[in-house]
Amino acid sequence: MLRTNTCGELRIENVNQTVTLCGWVQKIKDLGSLTFIDLRDRYGITQLKLNIDSDSSLNQIAKNLGREFVLQVTGTVIERESKNKNNPTGEIEILVTQINILNKSITPPFTIEDETDGGDELRMKYRYLDLRRTIVRKNLELRHRMALETRNFLDKQKFIEVETPVLIKSTPEGARDFVVPSRMNKNQFYALPQSPQTFKQLLMVSGFDRYYQIVKCFRDEDLRADRQPEFTQIDCEMSFVEQEDILQTFESLTKHLFKVVKGIDIPEIPRMSYADAMKFYGNDKPDTRFEMKLVELNNTVKGKNFKVFDDAALVVAICAKGAAEYTRKQLDELTEWVKRPQIGATGLVYARHNTDGTLKSSVDKFYNEEELKKWSESCGSEPGDLILVLAGGEEKTRKAISELRLEMGTRLGLRDKNKFSCLWVIDFPLLEWNEGDPNLLASLAGRWHAKHHPFTSPKPEDIHLLDTDPGKIRANAYDIVINGVEVGGGSIRIHNKDLQAKMFEVLGFTKEEAQKQFGFLMNAFEFGAPPHGGIAFGFDRFCSLFGGAESIRDFIAFPKNNSGKDVMIDSPSEISDEQLKELYIKTYE
Amino acid sequence: MLRTNTCGELRIENVNQTVTLCGWVQKIKDLGSLTFIDLRDRYGITQLKLNIDSDSSLNQIAKNLGREFVLQVTGTVIERESKNKNNPTGEIEILVTQINILNKSITPPFTIEDETDGGDELRMKYRYLDLRRTIVRKNLELRHRMALETRNFLDKQKFIEVETPVLIKSTPEGARDFVVPSRMNKNQFYALPQSPQTFKQLLMVSGFDRYYQIVKCFRDEDLRADRQPEFTQIDCEMSFVEQEDILQTFESLTKHLFKVVKGIDIPEIPRMSYADAMKFYGNDKPDTRFEMKLVELNNTVKGKNFKVFDDAALVVAICAKGAAEYTRKQLDELTEWVKRPQIGATGLVYARHNTDGTLKSSVDKFYNEEELKKWSESCGSEPGDLILVLAGGEEKTRKAISELRLEMGTRLGLRDKNKFSCLWVIDFPLLEWNEGDPNLLASLAGRWHAKHHPFTSPKPEDIHLLDTDPGKIRANAYDIVINGVEVGGGSIRIHNKDLQAKMFEVLGFTKEEAQKQFGFLMNAFEFGAPPHGGIAFGFDRFCSLFGGAESIRDFIAFPKNNSGKDVMIDSPSEISDEQLKELYIKTYE
Repeated sequence: MLRTNTCGELRIENVNQTVTLCGWVQKIKDLGSLTFIDLRDRYGITQLKLNIDSDSSLNQIAKNLGREFVLQVTGTVIERESKNKNNPTGEIEILVTQINILNKSITPPFTIEDETDGGDELRMKYRYLDLRRTIVRKNLELRHRMALETRNFLDKQKFIEVETPVLIKSTPEGARDFVVPSRMNKNQFYALPQSPQTFKQLLMVSGFDRYYQIVKCFRDEDLRADRQPEFTQIDCEMSFVEQEDILQTFESLTKHLFKVVKGIDIPEIPRMSYADAMKFYGNDKPDTRFEMKLVELNNTVKGKNFKVFDDAALVVAICAKGAAEYTRKQLDELTEWVKRPQIGATGLVYARHNTDGTLKSSVDKFYNEEELKKWSESCGSEPGDLILVLAGGEEKTRKAISELRLEMGTRLGLRDKNKFSCLWVIDFPLLEWNEGDPNLLASLAGRWHAKHHPFTSPKPEDIHLLDTDPGKIRANAYDIVINGVEVGGGSIRIHNKDLQAKMFEVLGFTKEEAQKQFGFLMNAFEFGAPPHGGIAFGFDRFCSLFGGAESIRDFIAFPKNNSGKDVMIDSPSEISDEQLKELYIKTYE
Repeated sequence: MLRTNTCGELRIENVNQTVTLCGWVQKIKDLGSLTFIDLRDRYGITQLKLNIDSDSSLNQIAKNLGREFVLQVTGTVIERESKNKNNPTGEIEILVTQINILNKSITPPFTIEDETDGGDELRMKYRYLDLRRTIVRKNLELRHRMALETRNFLDKQKFIEVETPVLIKSTPEGARDFVVPSRMNKNQFYALPQSPQTFKQLLMVSGFDRYYQIVKCFRDEDLRADRQPEFTQIDCEMSFVEQEDILQTFESLTKHLFKVVKGIDIPEIPRMSYADAMKFYGNDKPDTRFEMKLVELNNTVKGKNFKVFDDAALVVAICAKGAAEYTRKQLDELTEWVKRPQIGATGLVYARHNTDGTLKSSVDKFYNEEELKKWSESCGSEPGDLILVLAGGEEKTRKAISELRLEMGTRLGLRDKNKFSCLWVIDFPLLEWNEGDPNLLASLAGRWHAKHHPFTSPKPEDIHLLDTDPGKIRANAYDIVINGVEVGGGSIRIHNKDLQAKMFEVLGFTKEEAQKQFGFLMNAFEFGAPPHGGIAFGFDRFCSLFGGAESIRDFIAFPKNNSGKDVMIDSPSEISDEQLKELYIKTYE
């Protein structure tokens, strides 16, 4: 080893030891006859003391050092005069006797500090420098810890990690596949897996019983802010189980991770039906760190000649605790906020429940205090609260009030990123109608689309609706939601060939298409497939949630930007004609 | 859970308990009034006893059962009359009160037994049934154990697992890349990584210091028997180290795995230079479970009018201990064996060192006993041994005798798969001349090619040969070889921009090509790259070695065949015109 110790480990007990450290120059302080250098490595920062006067060769070297130079230094551990209590090595410093410059550095394009002056694009281009920042490195250390703890936990529960193939077959019934032309099989293509779904089900058919894998998956989507074309899942499957068993097993995993990684005890995770989530929170991944449930006011407010409410399919309110003192200016600003195209409301009605008990609304013309008391009762408002009301088309209004609820939660400080609220959302619908989702192939529009995926089992009591009212069928499907983020989801699967075939039929597959794409799975079901089900956690998101960050990108070592580009290595890029030719493909404009 | 216990856990202590098991029907024995069923799951086999006479509904069900049906059975644990000592559950059986058929099975195309009647192709097509066989499942359990132990070991050594991207950039200077057309970036392609080499080096530049990853890699090669287009590596890199540190760290890992997975204590791993490996074993991955070193006889045998030897660039022998009693027939057969095109020798000369001390050769016409004594002295033969000699062109003959040595090792029972002999081969040449390797792009023929990869550091004392005699340069590169299998390899890397640029020049890159493909790495070296090096283990092969198997395919859940096809899912396959169009590519014949 080129060093005896790291820059994070020396303490007052080590005084008088001769040590050799390696690391990067974080900072140089030139005090004339003394020079101090902060030397940084992954483990910490140690102060070096160079007595320039007494050693002219050190003097020579010290003069030519710069930020991010890589040094190997030897010296004696000494006690510092002015100790730094904020640094674990802050009681000591190294009186340097020898410096060896292992490598020089030109000036980095941004500062290597937690608070850097580098913009997003620049930091991505020089990601290898961005990763030197402690704050970014700690994210990846957290990710490592999460993965290892997950593996050891599942291993103790007798789960086996099995690697499934990356070069598989295109079955673009979900999102678009990335494809890989085959050189050895002319005009044929592999596809990269959107998930190992069919393979893990085959492993259940094989009797593997408890499978997991922390695995890369791929989806050729138009990227939104928090999506990556390649992402990682904790992918799991179990046999001889019912939904309850899966919820309990992965509730234990979740609790275990919170405990060992963050030191937090998570109470029993409550469950909520999809229907209730939509009704009370306006979406299927409610942030339950705070209440502020949606209250439907249709029966309360209609028939008072207020056209906006009378014409609305849905009038819905939230009660913002303690916000009655919002100023007119704040409320105007909030009204503008809900009218932004991303939210899409046409306006905002409010009623203050004043601290003196009186009620005062923005629509007093139509609703007297008597009427407003009914609002208050419905919403459970108390003196000091603010009632916010949106009205309009059912779906759009529900979406808008859901966003407003989150926004008010944020503004009122109810969404502490160090507080965690977990929730199981259950009883999802099996299918949804695809009006023309841009992330699906155009040819799939105007069909039923599987809400989870085509292998999800309908609830036995709803199976009879497959022919008559597919949209009403509930699935044995569940999501785990933490702080309003969908961290994982899964289902009990179909394990019967005929039901699976029927499902493909409902999804608009011809018999031939179903056989061609998924024949292997349906055939496998003929040889004794056990009842099974599973779950997959979005590992990038799980990590970002644990790290208290908004974006998954901070938890991926080398992420791609919103155009799917890695700007550091400049990928994707053109390939040579020789390569194209060997693959029997041509590009065109 | 649909069961209270597994089929592997019930013992005599459980007698009188009421239990519910789930599993597959392995065997049915109909004894008239009694029916016995072997029920199998991942954990074992438990015998079920059905008293048909006393329960007519059981009778009805039992009559319709077949092999591989999936059952849920409830009953009482009872002591068996005739115990089966070979089965951990063999002291008990379940007196069944209730059977629930969870799923039926049609007759499997081959038997689900360790010794199956299914051929290779059939078992691959129905891999999900093949995986039911205990022998195959155990391979994947071993693989899981190896991976987890590796991770926990490296974690304790402060290595961090970092996921590197799968969608990267094509740099086909090694083998061919698999490429992925980008929909969002017209006419541009990602490539799948042949290894995370450049990324792990960037992590060292980032100060990550100790990185590992168990990671899928991809190589578009013409597949030989034991290659897969996608394979898994234990990929590792360390900073502030010299070669010695890496050898010691990964020697520890190797020993740890042998200890915890196989219960074997591996002694200190010896080291051998590449030059010695070629000289004494004829190849760079010698099987050191047995000696039988190569002995060059050029100086001993020339000038005796035996034209074959006189004309040969190399005359080389091995001494097969205790094989003097090989019959003429055996020796003729061995001669045919070395003349096969895969071996390529023109003939075989032998000399028996008889138990009475006399020497008798197949070329007595040219060599009297006095001369043969010289052979014997050179080879260190003793009475009872057999000296085998090949002669011809240097390279071809060395390769042939190396194969003959392995063959004789096998025939003499010296290659026990339960015995393990580890070896470090060091001091590899940096470069080799590419005459036209079919696994490389044709445009790379007639150039120097990096023996490990272009990032390997030449030995400092050999750097001056870069311009004058590149073939003579030795690298700080090393392989770990176990039982003649190259299990891993690595090197100390270049961390200096100028040396890296020089290296690309020697490899025939123009400055522009080098900058375009690897500019990001050379730029990174300007910002304080630390000295670093690493290693990668071929994980599939490592597992197959531990499992005592010849082929890596047995240790991959869903392998591809020699044409790169997955015959189970029928991949690669054609994709739709809609998909091709979105990717701006056309196929052609």
